[in-house]
Amino acid sequence: MTIASLQLQYRQFVAERDWEQFHSPKNLVMALTGEVGELTEIFQWLTQEESAAVMADEGRATAVRDELADVFAYLIRLADVLDVDLERAFTEKMTKNARKYPVKPDRV
Amino acid sequence: MTIASLQLQYRQFVAERDWEQFHSPKNLVMALTGEVGELTEIFQWLTQEESAAVMADEGRATAVRDELADVFAYLIRLADVLDVDLERAFTEKMTKNARKYPVKPDRV
Amino acid sequence: MTIASLQLQYRQFVAERDWEQFHSPKNLVMALTGEVGELTEIFQWLTQEESAAVMADEGRATAVRDELADVFAYLIRLADVLDVDLERAFTEKMTKNARKYPVKPDRV
Amino acid sequence: MTIASLQLQYRQFVAERDWEQFHSPKNLVMALTGEVGELTEIFQWLTQEESAAVMADEGRATAVRDELADVFAYLIRLADVLDVDLERAFTEKMTKNARKYPVKPDRV
Repeated sequence: MTIASLQLQYRQFVAERDWEQFHSPKNLVMALTGEVGELTEIFQWLTQEESAAVMADEGRATAVRDELADVFAYLIRLADVLDVDLERAFTEKMTKNARKYPVKPDRV
Repeated sequence: MTIASLQLQYRQFVAERDWEQFHSPKNLVMALTGEVGELTEIFQWLTQEESAAVMADEGRATAVRDELADVFAYLIRLADVLDVDLERAFTEKMTKNARKYPVKPDRV
Repeated sequence: MTIASLQLQYRQFVAERDWEQFHSPKNLVMALTGEVGELTEIFQWLTQEESAAVMADEGRATAVRDELADVFAYLIRLADVLDVDLERAFTEKMTKNARKYPVKPDRV
Repeated sequence: MTIASLQLQYRQFVAERDWEQFHSPKNLVMALTGEVGELTEIFQWLTQEESAAVMADEGRATAVRDELADVFAYLIRLADVLDVDLERAFTEKMTKNARKYPVKPDRV
């Protein structure tokens, strides 16, 4: 599946519920913050080791999947509303990052 | 392009720089927070109307694309490290959401 | 009441529950993020006008007070753990800000 | 110094720059998010041990103090705009928390 097809699916979900009126870029950025906050609450008291093993716990694993899905949903919705091609933005940012953080010669 | 192929690209970028040691789930959740914070800073003083027109300003548009890319990058990296299938998590969450927020009969 | 006395009160609350083990600066920063996320969820779909009138709604007013208290609690706890004097840090930052954003002559 | 006096100081700072127009509760919640994001960026790649020793590094210590001050500034500004008494909200929340998380008998 492409990101565009997931965006279309979510766009229809929003339209059927008449929620476009709430989905300004500003509001969606806040909604993204709220979901990242919920994701953070799962991890805040965990040690690094516990965080690495978080998916071994059935209840936590479901919570993590749900929160990752919520963050992803608002992110692709925000990109859709702003008409930003997420894949292209990612590829261009990776090119910038590769210049900013060059690989050390002995690692190439 | 699939999300899996973008994850593979980022995984190689991280490996070449020997950054796996920093990419625990806990740390990546914090990195995601940092990027959402930067995205938020673009929108915080904008009115709803200005937020809707944010891509009309060349400088802001580039900043928005860069920050969306950074949020997306850490999100797919986190999903990769946790071995979560983002598309599947999204689809399953949408099914839950559809039950939680049913469409009103007159809108079907 | 001084911030120091509130910090002492919270320090005792934490000690009585044997929670010091969880209160590393890193974890407290994440806890702060989680609470700001909950505060954000109250405001995310509100218009500017609705956000300005949020305390007129009894239920929302209680939620806002609770979330502000949670953000404040983790902030003073974090400052306590790091041995940072919040009032002094605030005053010094205000001095920096005053230099960075000078008042226009016609407004003095 | 009381929180009320710090709020008054910040209120004057804002008024002198004609910034009240930007300081809706919704916008201030976003500004708070942005500052917590900057605070998070200091801690995101640190181990728990490094986070506990963060103030030993001169540069990081200044950054931490500045970001704590920024979070505190927007928090007391938000409380001021909403007419919420932060100390009272804190005390009331602590009472709720004490009921929610009772101290185990052997610790009293």
